[in-house]
Amino acid sequence: MSSSNLRRLQQLTSQLNVNPCSDTVIDPKKSIQDERLNPSFPIQELTDYINGGAENSRLKKMVMEQLERDPLWKVDDYPNLSLEELRVRVFKKVKSLVSYFMNEPLPMFYLRFEVVNLVDPGFYTRVGVHYGLFVSNLQSQATPNQFAYWLEQGALNMQGMFGCFAMTELGHGSNVQGVETTATLDLDTDEFVIHTPTLTATKWWIGGAAHTATHAVVFAQLIVKGKNHGVKSFVVPLRDPKDFSLKIGVTIGDCGKKMGRDGIDNGYIQFSHVRIPRSYLLMKYTKVDSEGNVTKPPLDQVGYGALMNGRVSMVRDGAIFAFKALTIALRYAAVRRQFSSTPDQPETKLLDYPIHQHRLIPLLAKAFALRFTANEVKAIYENLLEVIDQAKSPESLKAAMNVMKEAHATSAGLKAFSTWECLDIIERCRQACGGHGYSSYTGLANMYQDFAVQCTWEGDNTILTLQLGRYLIQSYLNRNKGELPPGIQYLNLLSSPEKMKSTCKSNNVDDLINLNTLVQAWDLACASCARDAGEAYQKAVNQGQTPEQAFEFASVERLRAAKIHTNGYTIKQFAQSLQNAPKSLQPILTRLAQLHAVNTTVEFSGELLQVGYFNPEQMSIIRDQVKTLCTEIRKDVIPLVDSFGFSDYVVNSPLGRYDGDVYTAYFDLVQRNNPPVHPPPYFESLIKPLLQNKSENAEIINMEID
Amino acid sequence: MSSSNLRRLQQLTSQLNVNPCSDTVIDPKKSIQDERLNPSFPIQELTDYINGGAENSRLKKMVMEQLERDPLWKVDDYPNLSLEELRVRVFKKVKSLVSYFMNEPLPMFYLRFEVVNLVDPGFYTRVGVHYGLFVSNLQSQATPNQFAYWLEQGALNMQGMFGCFAMTELGHGSNVQGVETTATLDLDTDEFVIHTPTLTATKWWIGGAAHTATHAVVFAQLIVKGKNHGVKSFVVPLRDPKDFSLKIGVTIGDCGKKMGRDGIDNGYIQFSHVRIPRSYLLMKYTKVDSEGNVTKPPLDQVGYGALMNGRVSMVRDGAIFAFKALTIALRYAAVRRQFSSTPDQPETKLLDYPIHQHRLIPLLAKAFALRFTANEVKAIYENLLEVIDQAKSPESLKAAMNVMKEAHATSAGLKAFSTWECLDIIERCRQACGGHGYSSYTGLANMYQDFAVQCTWEGDNTILTLQLGRYLIQSYLNRNKGELPPGIQYLNLLSSPEKMKSTCKSNNVDDLINLNTLVQAWDLACASCARDAGEAYQKAVNQGQTPEQAFEFASVERLRAAKIHTNGYTIKQFAQSLQNAPKSLQPILTRLAQLHAVNTTVEFSGELLQVGYFNPEQMSIIRDQVKTLCTEIRKDVIPLVDSFGFSDYVVNSPLGRYDGDVYTAYFDLVQRNNPPVHPPPYFESLIKPLLQNKSENAEIINMEID
Repeated sequence: MSSSNLRRLQQLTSQLNVNPCSDTVIDPKKSIQDERLNPSFPIQELTDYINGGAENSRLKKMVMEQLERDPLWKVDDYPNLSLEELRVRVFKKVKSLVSYFMNEPLPMFYLRFEVVNLVDPGFYTRVGVHYGLFVSNLQSQATPNQFAYWLEQGALNMQGMFGCFAMTELGHGSNVQGVETTATLDLDTDEFVIHTPTLTATKWWIGGAAHTATHAVVFAQLIVKGKNHGVKSFVVPLRDPKDFSLKIGVTIGDCGKKMGRDGIDNGYIQFSHVRIPRSYLLMKYTKVDSEGNVTKPPLDQVGYGALMNGRVSMVRDGAIFAFKALTIALRYAAVRRQFSSTPDQPETKLLDYPIHQHRLIPLLAKAFALRFTANEVKAIYENLLEVIDQAKSPESLKAAMNVMKEAHATSAGLKAFSTWECLDIIERCRQACGGHGYSSYTGLANMYQDFAVQCTWEGDNTILTLQLGRYLIQSYLNRNKGELPPGIQYLNLLSSPEKMKSTCKSNNVDDLINLNTLVQAWDLACASCARDAGEAYQKAVNQGQTPEQAFEFASVERLRAAKIHTNGYTIKQFAQSLQNAPKSLQPILTRLAQLHAVNTTVEFSGELLQVGYFNPEQMSIIRDQVKTLCTEIRKDVIPLVDSFGFSDYVVNSPLGRYDGDVYTAYFDLVQRNNPPVHPPPYFESLIKPLLQNKSENAEIINMEID
Repeated sequence: MSSSNLRRLQQLTSQLNVNPCSDTVIDPKKSIQDERLNPSFPIQELTDYINGGAENSRLKKMVMEQLERDPLWKVDDYPNLSLEELRVRVFKKVKSLVSYFMNEPLPMFYLRFEVVNLVDPGFYTRVGVHYGLFVSNLQSQATPNQFAYWLEQGALNMQGMFGCFAMTELGHGSNVQGVETTATLDLDTDEFVIHTPTLTATKWWIGGAAHTATHAVVFAQLIVKGKNHGVKSFVVPLRDPKDFSLKIGVTIGDCGKKMGRDGIDNGYIQFSHVRIPRSYLLMKYTKVDSEGNVTKPPLDQVGYGALMNGRVSMVRDGAIFAFKALTIALRYAAVRRQFSSTPDQPETKLLDYPIHQHRLIPLLAKAFALRFTANEVKAIYENLLEVIDQAKSPESLKAAMNVMKEAHATSAGLKAFSTWECLDIIERCRQACGGHGYSSYTGLANMYQDFAVQCTWEGDNTILTLQLGRYLIQSYLNRNKGELPPGIQYLNLLSSPEKMKSTCKSNNVDDLINLNTLVQAWDLACASCARDAGEAYQKAVNQGQTPEQAFEFASVERLRAAKIHTNGYTIKQFAQSLQNAPKSLQPILTRLAQLHAVNTTVEFSGELLQVGYFNPEQMSIIRDQVKTLCTEIRKDVIPLVDSFGFSDYVVNSPLGRYDGDVYTAYFDLVQRNNPPVHPPPYFESLIKPLLQNKSENAEIINMEID
């Protein structure tokens, strides 16, 4: 064999042997193992505390295993599926879930749903529109007899019926009262005629409409004897479940590709004089009889209390998706190395860079704050349901309305806060993974795309924040009439000019980052911003504007007051939740609560300096403590992430693997999803002609004139 | 015909007739026409000023027309193309661009590229890796003879050669000096052996590698006679242009789906002892002869000056994509209506809500600031190229290095700033379009996905910002040695404790929002933050840390100093650019510059209050002015957006149409891309069995035991 042939042989065989790591590179698995050697707290206890008990942890683990082992639930090939393939895949899973639903208790079903949401948000929405919107709406808006009827028709178990929720129109989103679709009573036939009078009245974005739904709850203007009685909801059959033919007068189309969540088939619906029996109007509150008499109960808005459910669970969603994103970015940061401080030494872990700690650890603290805040919001909601349930007399109805106002404002503001913060955390985590964060196989790009809609649906975040701001202005104006709810007792400070001018007396670090100190500072900032908003409102009213105009005039101040309120709220909730935490978790949770409070204080240092409780020097000290607290929490970062208790299947990102073997897993996943094709299919038809285009272009250039 | 049959007939025929708008809804086209009735400035003059002259405006318009009329350049069906289809479509367009390139002058080519980038960022990158990275690198790193050789081989016109740029590895991104790929000189054969020693050394994310490239510029450790001479670049043939077979020892795969830009085929490459002639090392600076003698020139880093090009153009990219995003969100806001203040009146335009103005108009001002800042960065870069070109003596080389340091720091910091701000603007615009912003057919979701990578490539934004921060610390330490470059003359303030303590004496609104006042405040904040960073660094050095460790220790302060610096820089650049603007544009541009300055001041009110130039009361007045300035600019918003001069084809969003006919266009586009299919293809196989699952589940429930 000639020496050059031998060399070639060596070259070829050497291809078979690519070492996983060079000598100066530390095995990524060891990098992450090291992080788990000495946690300062019992990890499982934190898992159980987050999950609300050891039993919940056990059940969640069970659900994760069931999903992981079910071949239908494979999700790591999602990026390469087309829109159609994805929709089919998602639908295939619906049936298995229905079986679970029929055979297990409700709390278990909710846990399952929480996990399913983390794994496949498109699936979650696809089933969610049926249960969370369609059935929920029947439950809260139908009379008991009506509800029983629809259950008998199969609503609960998707038997012959898959529901969707047709509220939004092409031209109407947030202003539900402005929808253009009409429901006109035809006294001759005792039917309602559902009609789409214009293009902008087309029902749009209706989840499940494009491919799946047989029935819709439709929001339309109730018109009886020429009089408009406002927007009510109606059940309208869309398709025959036997052959899926469209009902007469129903036009349905496909909204197509979205930024994310393509597993749910959003569609549009136009009704052309579609007739339904009168009894398909959901009549728990407003009733219409066959003579065309319309009766409205007092305070029918109470019925909408139940619909808060979606927002309440979205506060929690923000926390758990933040957990998932942080699992990926922080585990990767414990493995990824970059630059070495001394030549020939292993490179430094990203997580050991102060700047990387500063990028991610405050977000970890914020995610915990969101998680504990979500518990509080859930408790407020559950209390509300009880109050509504017991409200029969006009007085108790009125009292229920007050509870509802607070619950609505709180959940609205926190839904907006939690989803905005979570989206921001996902994006920061994505960017913290460098180039690999841009890949569709590492989990964060898709998580962003799937999650982004949460800032818009179930109430646009800006509008929801403004609604909280409106409540703050109203509470400011009424602050001296009766006791204030716990969340806004800071308004009492405004009665004492002295208290509003109080300042922090200590320059001692421990005093400054004490949670009581920080909560006091935030109470002052919240009170001050609420007053600013209230004063802007009053100024407008004094100038002769209507209340509505005045609220608009004060909208910038309203938004600011609401944002400061929600930030302060999370600081307080985190501090309060410490009191119930097991002793063993107190030190680490206290550090996290402090970091969250300190970091948020720095983020809003303008507002806090403005209120004057801290002076610039104190603020400098507080600012430095972000760094210090990050350093203190640093060693527990991976144990904290482990405490979220997500299996690798749920994390669904090679960068976020528990064992740290990120490069092998990432390479393998990308290769499996994109088997190399040589040459590419368009080589002969397109690439080759381009590469051989010499003569053609040369001709143009060399052509001489005359 | 029976009456019920007649009714049915009416129903059926009525489907054919859906009115575009109801009576109380105002025609969207009129809504936007009204906005153009009375602009306060000459729109075309602003267009020309943005474009750098009327001739450029004319040429851009020409390019937009050429693209729009070329069937190959259809882009409104992109959301529904698969990864493969998109790659084919994009490649088809390459050839037509090469023909333009060979037949038109370079400035025209650049203009064309700017428009092409706006229309199809994936295409831009696909061609960009060849010209902007592969050929650019040859140009800056090859000797004249080498460069001539590669041009002769077809590098310039893609004749037999399509280049890619193989720098990044699976395990190495920002730390280029740490790449693991080796290039070992074989003295026996006068060849370099290019080798991938580990999995993490796999070249990763290489644009064009998966499907297109025949050659790569490869970054590898130069090893001669057992000694490592650091990372150099080599030309390595990858595929035979005739049949696209892989060269011996070359393994190529596909990185697959990404968050966006799927038109560019990123791939991975492994080299297994691949041999190339010694002369394929690019030897403009470091030379290796056949005896294995390695000669290095002094200050070879100067060669990398030319590579700043990418970052410089990305500062402009940030501005123009922000323009595009704002065109969509603001035109939509002039058409979309929501809630009416009085019953039976048309609903109010989003753009007339103070909160919506507050969401978007400051972003409009920021985009202008970015655009004018980009001009300055370009001028700095062009000056640098000239200095490098003329630097022959060691002294002038050293002087060139100083110019380069400043240019590098400025462009690095502003690349990060501009891309972060633009991404944020895109997302805010997307959310401001409500639910329709989540559709893939309205332009903003995809714009976000395509643009997001700009925060990572050509230097991770955090690392680039830290590099600017390092420069600021160095400049702080050396501030008394020689004159400071214009961008950081604020450091001179630190020599005068009195100046650092100066305060604003006036509470008058006009004084407070005067650009000189605001620039002064920002100079103080910049100086103060640079000092904080410098002091943190010095503290670490005094404690015995090495300079590198001290820079790490001070990284949080460095990042902050750099962020304040870039924000202040844009305020100053906008103020300065006013002086060159035509008289007719001065009033509107001054308003925008003020809004940008005031809004940024409020955003960083913590930093500004900390430095003490403004007191809390003054800050409150400034804060209110954001609202006031938005109101003042409100009436010119649509004329301002029109001045960007994008055709509907370039905007590529029904929501951003010039004529305001958004609903019809949106509905039509969605329908065209998703022709309804009834029933869905998986009805018989999947949906029907689910809907008929009654018996099966009932069986489970009813089964009795015993």
